[in-house]
Amino acid sequence: MDAPRESTTDRVESFSDGVFAVAITLLVLNLSVHAAAGQLGNGLLHEWPHYATYVVSFLTVGIIWMNHHSQFERVERTDRTMMLLNLVLLMFVTLIPFPTGLLASHLRTPSDQEVAAAVYAGTLLAMGFAFFATYIWAMRAGLFAEWVSQRHMSYYRRRNATGLLVYVAALGVAFVNAPASLALCGLTAIYYALPGKRLA
Amino acid sequence: MDAPRESTTDRVESFSDGVFAVAITLLVLNLSVHAAAGQLGNGLLHEWPHYATYVVSFLTVGIIWMNHHSQFERVERTDRTMMLLNLVLLMFVTLIPFPTGLLASHLRTPSDQEVAAAVYAGTLLAMGFAFFATYIWAMRAGLFAEWVSQRHMSYYRRRNATGLLVYVAALGVAFVNAPASLALCGLTAIYYALPGKRLA
Amino acid sequence: MDAPRESTTDRVESFSDGVFAVAITLLVLNLSVHAAAGQLGNGLLHEWPHYATYVVSFLTVGIIWMNHHSQFERVERTDRTMMLLNLVLLMFVTLIPFPTGLLASHLRTPSDQEVAAAVYAGTLLAMGFAFFATYIWAMRAGLFAEWVSQRHMSYYRRRNATGLLVYVAALGVAFVNAPASLALCGLTAIYYALPGKRLA
Amino acid sequence: MDAPRESTTDRVESFSDGVFAVAITLLVLNLSVHAAAGQLGNGLLHEWPHYATYVVSFLTVGIIWMNHHSQFERVERTDRTMMLLNLVLLMFVTLIPFPTGLLASHLRTPSDQEVAAAVYAGTLLAMGFAFFATYIWAMRAGLFAEWVSQRHMSYYRRRNATGLLVYVAALGVAFVNAPASLALCGLTAIYYALPGKRLA
Repeated sequence: MDAPRESTTDRVESFSDGVFAVAITLLVLNLSVHAAAGQLGNGLLHEWPHYATYVVSFLTVGIIWMNHHSQFERVERTDRTMMLLNLVLLMFVTLIPFPTGLLASHLRTPSDQEVAAAVYAGTLLAMGFAFFATYIWAMRAGLFAEWVSQRHMSYYRRRNATGLLVYVAALGVAFVNAPASLALCGLTAIYYALPGKRLA
Repeated sequence: MDAPRESTTDRVESFSDGVFAVAITLLVLNLSVHAAAGQLGNGLLHEWPHYATYVVSFLTVGIIWMNHHSQFERVERTDRTMMLLNLVLLMFVTLIPFPTGLLASHLRTPSDQEVAAAVYAGTLLAMGFAFFATYIWAMRAGLFAEWVSQRHMSYYRRRNATGLLVYVAALGVAFVNAPASLALCGLTAIYYALPGKRLA
Repeated sequence: MDAPRESTTDRVESFSDGVFAVAITLLVLNLSVHAAAGQLGNGLLHEWPHYATYVVSFLTVGIIWMNHHSQFERVERTDRTMMLLNLVLLMFVTLIPFPTGLLASHLRTPSDQEVAAAVYAGTLLAMGFAFFATYIWAMRAGLFAEWVSQRHMSYYRRRNATGLLVYVAALGVAFVNAPASLALCGLTAIYYALPGKRLA
Repeated sequence: MDAPRESTTDRVESFSDGVFAVAITLLVLNLSVHAAAGQLGNGLLHEWPHYATYVVSFLTVGIIWMNHHSQFERVERTDRTMMLLNLVLLMFVTLIPFPTGLLASHLRTPSDQEVAAAVYAGTLLAMGFAFFATYIWAMRAGLFAEWVSQRHMSYYRRRNATGLLVYVAALGVAFVNAPASLALCGLTAIYYALPGKRLA
């Protein structure tokens, strides 16, 4: 007998949950403060870009996890391609602590903030694109459960595509105003956090 | 057909367990020692604030995990709001290694210990408040299992609120005596560790 | 209705697995090498105490996990005390990367190697003792499954106690010969790795 | 009654998933950039060996996880030896961030790149060999499910052995051309990522 080509999604979810959980928790390693004696309060306040990027990255990874969770409630089977696309998604999720630290460190450096913000928005865009790819593949390969309607899938595809467009915008804005680019990324997280339209 | 708005709590628990497990384990990265040759013993003893904060933070995260575990034995369904509140709780749990290291490094610096202790107690207070919010929401939205009595829920709500009050006190004490504030935080963990009243 | 006082062990195992997995993986962060250009080979060889301690600590945590796994196949229920004792066990497991790095850095420093080896063996002893305590409590509180015989429990109790004695020995040897103390700790891991006596 | 000698694979998979998830996520800690003000863009480009090794290591660990997942769909029972061999596999998986950082840092240092590339390929070879050993043991000890045919097992054994040969080649090539050795390791990941032959 041959190996199963399609299998249930339990262990993919468990591995993905682990990667999301570690990546989201490693964000804290970007936080540190160097202050002269008696200046701790000022030193902490001075690090606000680290807190702002921490919150945006934490919410982004958390919301992507929630959407991943949502998606895999509807996806009943996986195949090799789905696992590979999921792996690419996880590669960009895992990468996030790096551009987060980069943007935090350079958000107030006039000569470097654009590059840092562009790398940040670019990483989120790549992650969003990989997520979109898993969605499209699951549709094409018929991995969704039978009770998931065509209409529902189209709605979510549009919703995912909207997020991608905002990340493209954030990438463009990065070259004009780095904090605004970060704010756009935060807004995207909030947009995804809101419950989707209730389809009748 | 539409997407399910309420779903079982399995994967939320699995993701939360992962985040708790990573956050609690990252605490060890705050421990290090710099000692001149032949002074390792003294150098280690000198680091006692790191061990004290390690133990308090470890027990706090561990007990919060135990209570989270307890709560999700009684919560049968989740919704989008519950997941978001849970995410905010996890954001503060994940943050804990940062104020832990901060307090450990500044517990003996007269000019900075109050700020460090206040940031520490404030983070625990924020975490406790987020936990309280998940509890209240689960009550409001009817997410608890049917076998959980109103009386039981009220009891746990009071119990959670008590913890919040102690953290408020620890925040106040921070500006008077930093080690006493840390001790209060440790006592809160022990308070929660003790089994609750047996309701007949 | 009241809250359940005894519950199944699923989520305790899942959280513990997470902590074991993170603690065992953080050991790698102790590994690094500083070498002048063209001296990488020599630099790597010079770091052998880091590899030796890495292997001993990895196997120790791994074997403790295996025994924890074994134990929880026989433990059917948990209570609050069991969860607290388990938390203390996890606190010492989580601590291991710290004394591991300490011993690796000081294994060849004549004036400090005894202190470092004693801290290392002492941490493993504390972990072993916490593990022993969970075992004893599970026996006292009747948490084992009914199919686990008294004879079997006594055998494992003896087996655990043996390991504790070897760690006590390693703690004593630390003050005489640090590498020998590390070797004893490694032998303990191998002792536990071997399958136990087959009870008829 | 005696302890079970063979048990289901659930918790081994859960622990292994955790270790894979943490190891793969720690790779990001190798990424950092030091650039003079206004030179962030150039500084980031200059770090390309870090990105190249990040991608190869991420894919390698990810693919090994996928194969581990595949294997444990077919393995129905574990025994003590299987758990030990699995632990050795995890020890090398966990090690990977170290040689990854080593190779990234020395890929352009003429005098050290061969050593770094050899350590990298050697670690992957050791990991592959440990994986092969779990496979062989599962065959010998009859741990595979009954529906897995002899022919299928032989096919996968050959497939695993092929990967080992490529890692041996990469180890040899390391002493001639470090980037080519890294490329060979990347190709091995892609080879394993492709679905295996469909056995009728």
